[in-house]
Amino acid sequence: MKTIIRKGKKTDASEILSLIKELAVFERAPNAVIINRESIEKFGFGKNPLFKCFVAQQGEKIVGVALFYQRYSTWKGPTLHLEDLIVTEKMKGKGIGSKLYKAFLKYADELGVERVEWTVLDWNLAAIDFYQKSGAKVLSDWRTVQMDKKTIQNYFKSHK
Amino acid sequence: MKTIIRKGKKTDASEILSLIKELAVFERAPNAVIINRESIEKFGFGKNPLFKCFVAQQGEKIVGVALFYQRYSTWKGPTLHLEDLIVTEKMKGKGIGSKLYKAFLKYADELGVERVEWTVLDWNLAAIDFYQKSGAKVLSDWRTVQMDKKTIQNYFKSHK
Repeated sequence: MKTIIRKGKKTDASEILSLIKELAVFERAPNAVIINRESIEKFGFGKNPLFKCFVAQQGEKIVGVALFYQRYSTWKGPTLHLEDLIVTEKMKGKGIGSKLYKAFLKYADELGVERVEWTVLDWNLAAIDFYQKSGAKVLSDWRTVQMDKKTIQNYFKSHK
Repeated sequence: MKTIIRKGKKTDASEILSLIKELAVFERAPNAVIINRESIEKFGFGKNPLFKCFVAQQGEKIVGVALFYQRYSTWKGPTLHLEDLIVTEKMKGKGIGSKLYKAFLKYADELGVERVEWTVLDWNLAAIDFYQKSGAKVLSDWRTVQMDKKTIQNYFKSHK
């Protein structure tokens, strides 16, 4: 079946959420997703969007998504961050991920950003191989640091 | 001398750039900074800003900066990313970094984001210790992936 790559729209929100949940299971964090359809509608397709996306459509079904947003590097200036590149399990290995990746890179090229970036799990060797073959570099020396809402609130209890 | 923490403004751009360059030297990448003062003015204090910042001021001088922007996590929703937390070398160890960090966390708390995050070099043990003591978690299994402008253009030469 033919795959069409197009910009995401508000009515895709439910299917995008399903893909996000599918990826969370693959990434061994099935309970990590706390957002809902309304969050995707609001922050992707509302008044002041926080992200953009391309979707892969087959017939009436969304089988993949590339979701991204702008960041600012104090070294390079404006950059694009690829938050998620997802193809539904059944449709993997058919080049759909490559098509979405290419659409994302084309958008980055047109926007003229100095860099694109994203994160990958160190055990996801298939993804790492795919990215490295495209020319991307996996950095070994940078670590992600996170603090959740509850921990922020705890911080203020001991730092008044 | 008294340290004031306040929102950054356009006229701080030169001093913010100096701090960014100072951090790049510390992070063993002295030639990585290609942005200039105009970039900071435009993307920090122009019409559609890509970042916000707090600065630490002593007398007439800016001695530190916390620079951050919004991101969107497909797990948690809107988040804040701390791009840089910098205190000039001579003023380290006096609690100025903590003050800037606290101002950033307060802003995140008021905004109501579910998570804040940033990256740290794996050999920067002093920073890692500081972050962990505040309750933040350093993730061991996620890697940053990057592709620069030239590599994006090369990609399209071989993927037409």
